[in-house]
Amino acid sequence: MTAKPASLRNLALAIDVGGTNIKGGIITRGGDLVTHAYAATLSRAAPETVVLQLLGLVQELCEQSGLRPEQLDGIGVSMAAFVTADGVITATAHLSRAWLGYNLKTRLAADLCLESYFSLDTPAPTLGEYYYGAGQGIDDLAYVTVSTGVGAGIIAQGKYFTGGLGWAGGVGHIIIDENSPIVCEGCHNHGCLETFAAKQGILAATRELANLHPESRIWMLADGDLAAVTPQMVSQAAQAGDPAAQEVFRRAGHALGLGLVSLADIVAPSRIVVGGGIARAGELLLGPARRVVQERAFPPRIRQVEIVQAALGDLSGIFGAAAMVFYDLRINSPIE
Amino acid sequence: MTAKPASLRNLALAIDVGGTNIKGGIITRGGDLVTHAYAATLSRAAPETVVLQLLGLVQELCEQSGLRPEQLDGIGVSMAAFVTADGVITATAHLSRAWLGYNLKTRLAADLCLESYFSLDTPAPTLGEYYYGAGQGIDDLAYVTVSTGVGAGIIAQGKYFTGGLGWAGGVGHIIIDENSPIVCEGCHNHGCLETFAAKQGILAATRELANLHPESRIWMLADGDLAAVTPQMVSQAAQAGDPAAQEVFRRAGHALGLGLVSLADIVAPSRIVVGGGIARAGELLLGPARRVVQERAFPPRIRQVEIVQAALGDLSGIFGAAAMVFYDLRINSPIE
Repeated sequence: MTAKPASLRNLALAIDVGGTNIKGGIITRGGDLVTHAYAATLSRAAPETVVLQLLGLVQELCEQSGLRPEQLDGIGVSMAAFVTADGVITATAHLSRAWLGYNLKTRLAADLCLESYFSLDTPAPTLGEYYYGAGQGIDDLAYVTVSTGVGAGIIAQGKYFTGGLGWAGGVGHIIIDENSPIVCEGCHNHGCLETFAAKQGILAATRELANLHPESRIWMLADGDLAAVTPQMVSQAAQAGDPAAQEVFRRAGHALGLGLVSLADIVAPSRIVVGGGIARAGELLLGPARRVVQERAFPPRIRQVEIVQAALGDLSGIFGAAAMVFYDLRINSPIE
Repeated sequence: MTAKPASLRNLALAIDVGGTNIKGGIITRGGDLVTHAYAATLSRAAPETVVLQLLGLVQELCEQSGLRPEQLDGIGVSMAAFVTADGVITATAHLSRAWLGYNLKTRLAADLCLESYFSLDTPAPTLGEYYYGAGQGIDDLAYVTVSTGVGAGIIAQGKYFTGGLGWAGGVGHIIIDENSPIVCEGCHNHGCLETFAAKQGILAATRELANLHPESRIWMLADGDLAAVTPQMVSQAAQAGDPAAQEVFRRAGHALGLGLVSLADIVAPSRIVVGGGIARAGELLLGPARRVVQERAFPPRIRQVEIVQAALGDLSGIFGAAAMVFYDLRINSPIE
């Protein structure tokens, strides 16, 4: 069987192998999600076990949609692992070490007669938002994810931008307050953007503000135990109008804005799309961030950068995996 | 006369029209400076007056070298003005407003039968260092200039990178200490890199440290008047071993390093070349900057970025102008 050229492809099988879940979908070239499915990743299992999970998910997607694998035009896989464009896993923090050196392309070819595409899970959501989400048509774009950490993927003139060292977009550890006493959980330095704008910062500010505000709704959502607070609870409280929770997001958004000033001043994207779990708080986070950029980006032209919420949520990874199939994108993970 | 294709050109006329000086040179494709000359820019004069200065400089260069204009393969002009690739001036802070809308390409064609190339004076030094200086062969490069302000030009995969908004590389106003009380002379905000790492920061630290150290050599160089101090004097004192002056550069270099962490983390260049008047202090500035990047850039792979001093000094602009001729580079200035 000869694979169709990328330009004739209309249906992609898209898989996102995360440390927690495997997500799968069948996606049309136009961006319709025909069907999708999830499974819990057996993250510590041997590669073959995870591959069988993946193939099971493919079967489920085909059954749900009534499509046969032969009707699909390729498979795109976003992985919680470093992977070459040829499908060889070179490093992973979230999956078993037995994956190192594993050739996933060869293995998939044994069961699926489909052209296959691979990417680390950093580029995939950026590609998803660029081709199918809040970044459509914006050829100079940054996608910023705010969750456990903060990271960015950059699209420059329509292509994923890696930089000479392969790691472009690392906004999480730029220094926004060198004198901060807080140690970054990610890099063990001080004053990184992540310590203020992502999970660590949200939880630290929540502890501080909830203790100052015993009336805060946060206490109820956390059953009186601040150690049990999650960013989602704080977001829920903030969206219900809780002032302490809103202040938590205002601070995180302000810090995010300082990071976005660096990103915007240095890369000058036309639009910044903000996604990730914590960005689900929407304007509670983006409003303060946008204000900082409006005041601080320089020259003034940079203040025209649009700052918008991501459109695809959890599915940005599979949409990015589908884009690899439709647009023949070959993306090598950086070298560690 | 038909212009030679860029690939056959071996001798370029290179002009750098700054707010203070016009510099000119004849440069070989291999990067030899055949001859060069300077004139003081009549910066407030009408365009025709400055053009006659420029043409006078061209004549001088030809006389010095024994070459006729017809033996040259093109003219590249770096301008202290925004200019289209077609040679139309669109904005300028340093030259007379009468330049706005002026077509320099047409005007030069009336006197010189040479293919002409134009660029704002930001890209030109970056191109100079990339093609002929400390960035040769490094296709993912950042050139950072430290003088009155701080700015950067980025080369990505061998091309000058502008970003969607046209202003990429603006590292001078990224925020390294939001709580700083110092107002930035460039953008009137607080805590910008420029207020610490460039002229303003150097002079402020010099005042503070010279007052603490009446024995400092700075006093002698400034004839006892700190208001008369220049960064060049401080650099001279530091190079002669004056501890207070060295501390001034250590602080500026540390601040520069915080900015370079943002640049390196976000753009991931393989090398950063640092030029501009203040960078002539060399390792006094670059040593502390490099230490911050070694400690703080993340992920660790980014710490492999080389940080080196520029090689071309004042002549980076004319070398960039020559590169435009040899490599057929058409660079539009950003929109303000």
